[in-house]
Amino acid sequence: MNGKVYLVGAGPGDPDLLTVKALRLLQSSDVILYDDLVSPEILQLIPHRVQVQNVGKRCGSKTMRQEEINFLLVELAAAGKQVVRLKSGDPLIFGRAGEEIEALRKSNIAYEIVPGITSALGAAAAAGIPLTHRQTSSTLVLTAGHRAPENADAEWKTCAASSSTLVVYMPGHDYAGVANRLSKAGFTRGTRCAIVSRATTPEQRVHRTTIADLPLSPKLTAPSLLIVGEVVKFAKEDTHEPTAVLHKTESTTDALKEYSVL
Amino acid sequence: MNGKVYLVGAGPGDPDLLTVKALRLLQSSDVILYDDLVSPEILQLIPHRVQVQNVGKRCGSKTMRQEEINFLLVELAAAGKQVVRLKSGDPLIFGRAGEEIEALRKSNIAYEIVPGITSALGAAAAAGIPLTHRQTSSTLVLTAGHRAPENADAEWKTCAASSSTLVVYMPGHDYAGVANRLSKAGFTRGTRCAIVSRATTPEQRVHRTTIADLPLSPKLTAPSLLIVGEVVKFAKEDTHEPTAVLHKTESTTDALKEYSVL
Repeated sequence: MNGKVYLVGAGPGDPDLLTVKALRLLQSSDVILYDDLVSPEILQLIPHRVQVQNVGKRCGSKTMRQEEINFLLVELAAAGKQVVRLKSGDPLIFGRAGEEIEALRKSNIAYEIVPGITSALGAAAAAGIPLTHRQTSSTLVLTAGHRAPENADAEWKTCAASSSTLVVYMPGHDYAGVANRLSKAGFTRGTRCAIVSRATTPEQRVHRTTIADLPLSPKLTAPSLLIVGEVVKFAKEDTHEPTAVLHKTESTTDALKEYSVL
Repeated sequence: MNGKVYLVGAGPGDPDLLTVKALRLLQSSDVILYDDLVSPEILQLIPHRVQVQNVGKRCGSKTMRQEEINFLLVELAAAGKQVVRLKSGDPLIFGRAGEEIEALRKSNIAYEIVPGITSALGAAAAAGIPLTHRQTSSTLVLTAGHRAPENADAEWKTCAASSSTLVVYMPGHDYAGVANRLSKAGFTRGTRCAIVSRATTPEQRVHRTTIADLPLSPKLTAPSLLIVGEVVKFAKEDTHEPTAVLHKTESTTDALKEYSVL
């Protein structure tokens, strides 16, 4: 009998921000294939009996081609395994789940998509930035820094003109280049922005600045993202304190262990 | 001693898509103020001893003004209560959390934001639609149907031009009007779209169509949203079957009870 593939979002990093369903699947599956960006705190929740493999696709250290991952998913499920494909954030946003879904459908493998907290939401919560605001922004644009520049820049222009909130995933460290693209798209040099690094993890950093000063910003550790727009003015003042998301009265791992359904 | 306010995302409807943190807070808080769109299945998870109040802001049946909600949050926390402000989806996307945060800051009330699965992610997972795709769309635009039409339409134009994915929250039932706005923004009449109603709940419906045929679509129950773009071609064929998200081997409520930290 065939197994099944679960395409699961791991959320931004804090294990407390896993969904109940994701947590249950981590604890009940046979095999887990995960990306580099999934946090170690989340991987610690996987029981020892589960077979775990890093199929990371981080820039510069690609460990497995997408076609190989697709093949592995199909073969494992065909062998009767319950397989979790664990992706940071949400699987349907910059997660290449589309390609994996097509491969599973072609091979007639049962699958299920379990959404996760996408990084923009984790970062905004941690930095206290409302992504939409009745007076300031009624549209949110999520885009990726390294993709299709010509398309992205069209979106950036509209954001500049319409005061939408722009979130750039994977902005990279060429902050001067990004600031230049934002200026060319029509954003004023005084437009507020914030770099949020490793949101919702103990290493979280938030750096608030403006487009003019973005090139002078400290190069924060990946994964990071850039939030651009007037809503950034609502960010918490003390951006270097550990995020409120992490104020816990107990160890997350201990608390989560109590939830085990096994 | 002051209490604290937790601005918590309840996700799209399925209690299994609550975060671990949200579930714990629902079970440990003193007071919960919730919006109309929070699903009954989620409200059932709240213990009887918790004081629960509907402060719903649904169109046409506004039960409490935003200022009154802000006042209540401040007063309850000042009285030492642990307060959960429960919003469907994510609190920072079309949730007016910005205004509540400002009120809490002004009154020096401690608060924490707990992100949730925003409806677009729940709907996309349920319908099997990747919101970004390497070959098709590298940008995702989230906007609200009833807001600031002049700004929204600028975004819609860019989406049409750049093949970004557009998700319209709260599109309403004037599908002909929406189709007209989409056409005026430059989308071709053959552009695919899908209406997803009550995503991830037992009443979920997905209707796939094109902009040309959108006006002929059945008027699906709110909360619903409209996904527009070529990525819709990846949607599951059999869109009327209960969503995969809901294929459960056990009652959600029973399973969740095992997670109680109380």
